[in-house]
Amino acid sequence: MVTSDASVQVALDIIGVFVFALSGGLVALRARLDLFGVLVLAWVTGLGGGIIRDLLLGATPPVGISDWRLVLSGLLAGLLVFTFHGRLRAVARRRPRRVGLVSRLVKILDAGGLALFAVSGSLKAIQLDSPWLAAVIVGGVTAIGGGMIRDVLARQVPEVLQRELYAVPAFAGAALVVGLDRLGWLNPVTTWLCVALIFMTRMVAVALDLNVPRSRAAEPP
Amino acid sequence: MVTSDASVQVALDIIGVFVFALSGGLVALRARLDLFGVLVLAWVTGLGGGIIRDLLLGATPPVGISDWRLVLSGLLAGLLVFTFHGRLRAVARRRPRRVGLVSRLVKILDAGGLALFAVSGSLKAIQLDSPWLAAVIVGGVTAIGGGMIRDVLARQVPEVLQRELYAVPAFAGAALVVGLDRLGWLNPVTTWLCVALIFMTRMVAVALDLNVPRSRAAEPP
Amino acid sequence: MVTSDASVQVALDIIGVFVFALSGGLVALRARLDLFGVLVLAWVTGLGGGIIRDLLLGATPPVGISDWRLVLSGLLAGLLVFTFHGRLRAVARRRPRRVGLVSRLVKILDAGGLALFAVSGSLKAIQLDSPWLAAVIVGGVTAIGGGMIRDVLARQVPEVLQRELYAVPAFAGAALVVGLDRLGWLNPVTTWLCVALIFMTRMVAVALDLNVPRSRAAEPP
Repeated sequence: MVTSDASVQVALDIIGVFVFALSGGLVALRARLDLFGVLVLAWVTGLGGGIIRDLLLGATPPVGISDWRLVLSGLLAGLLVFTFHGRLRAVARRRPRRVGLVSRLVKILDAGGLALFAVSGSLKAIQLDSPWLAAVIVGGVTAIGGGMIRDVLARQVPEVLQRELYAVPAFAGAALVVGLDRLGWLNPVTTWLCVALIFMTRMVAVALDLNVPRSRAAEPP
Repeated sequence: MVTSDASVQVALDIIGVFVFALSGGLVALRARLDLFGVLVLAWVTGLGGGIIRDLLLGATPPVGISDWRLVLSGLLAGLLVFTFHGRLRAVARRRPRRVGLVSRLVKILDAGGLALFAVSGSLKAIQLDSPWLAAVIVGGVTAIGGGMIRDVLARQVPEVLQRELYAVPAFAGAALVVGLDRLGWLNPVTTWLCVALIFMTRMVAVALDLNVPRSRAAEPP
Repeated sequence: MVTSDASVQVALDIIGVFVFALSGGLVALRARLDLFGVLVLAWVTGLGGGIIRDLLLGATPPVGISDWRLVLSGLLAGLLVFTFHGRLRAVARRRPRRVGLVSRLVKILDAGGLALFAVSGSLKAIQLDSPWLAAVIVGGVTAIGGGMIRDVLARQVPEVLQRELYAVPAFAGAALVVGLDRLGWLNPVTTWLCVALIFMTRMVAVALDLNVPRSRAAEPP
């Protein structure tokens, strides 16, 4: 991301990977995968979006396989889920109220990851002189790609295609970044405003339980 | 595609994307996805084959994410399916004969998309100086790739692997294009003959309900 | 692979593709795919790992679609499975002991493919000046990627994520290759030692039925 402080950017990327990887590890456990499966699903959920982004932009090898800080962050999240999941569930049974707290925290962190990845994805595309539409799509795909691979590998229809206003803020935010760049208004301040806007839109969607409309014609399976 | 008239080529590409995207939207509705899911599945079905083609050829960013006419065509098809599906089903219940007409029209258009994509995929590979085998495979994959991604995301075993003489005309046609190019016989006329040949082979397969042989050893699931 | 004898290397690559493609064909039959489905699944299982490797490294078009010897090897394996599977099952019913022999042979060949692909994958990454971590991951992914695509297309949770010490020797071996390269100790002899080491580790895992640990917290599905 274009910021005056590159180390802040790296730190945020690492956090984004970590949060997404947590969700990958949890899905892996639910699908009864072994330790290796948990690590792979954590890694692919945290870094898959960025890997697709880099493949689409021809920026090989993708940072998702070459930057050890990002890879380590993803694997660490997987390891934590694998190690402490049993204990968390024991706590959950005794103190159900804490579950709500944790799951709300995860949703907040996840919204943060979504916002960061959508903005950083479209920025990388802009820096590589992609056409504007490619930059928008790459931004959105960076944000939702990891979760989609996670669900396909765990043999689920991707959650993002089914539920909640999740992808829309990501694509809209990426479009906003590209628009600001076209107008020459993209700078660290407006960039962070985009991140904040995506984050808050997503949080509002969570709070109000907003969903993308579903066709009434959709047949029962 | 190499034609004297580039605008005809673009128009045909847009139609191909649109037709494939319709099938993606229908599968998405059947899988009970929301509006966003329908749009994504339409987009990925219409443009996925071309995106895989461009990734395999190193032509990044793929036109499937950068050419707004193609993207718009795919999204529009998804939106139409989402909006009018309910009404179509109501008509279908009252006048069953019309269903046959529509479904036959869809199969014809789909065969057209298959033919166009197989030929344009192998032509793009040839223009980028790919080895002959890569050009054949890229042609076939351009034609069937979008539908395969659609089925994987909707958690189905890809239809093309299971049923009907669908992929064979695509790969055979792509091989024909590459062979003609090797012989120096590739020009707009022979190119369009290849498109016509794939189209008609596929239509014959539909009309006669031809299938690729299945092993008798295949066990019941 | 860096060896004094390039033709030996090619022969081994072809064998690796063939063995992996056999497993793809068998999975395809079990999923009741038609002949085309069997060929595609055989091809993608044998060559998919190398295709992902080449996409990650930006080496397009991937050899998995341009080298006719590799493609032929994969398709031939699929054709053999399709043709002789029924006969093999008839034999299996009459002489159950032979089944054990064949399945053991397949596991030995598969371990060989795993070892060859992990080493050749990381070597290709090294030759293209990838960062060390990318070279390790590319090596592992080359070895397990084909099988993962196979399982996703056949609508199964990838076997490698669920069972047995399979991926670990591949990634560890790739890391060993990269480490030796860093130390300047990589030569044909040490390269082959790495292949042998991965092969034997995997065989020990098969013989002792070793598995990656599974979380006790993993819930029943």
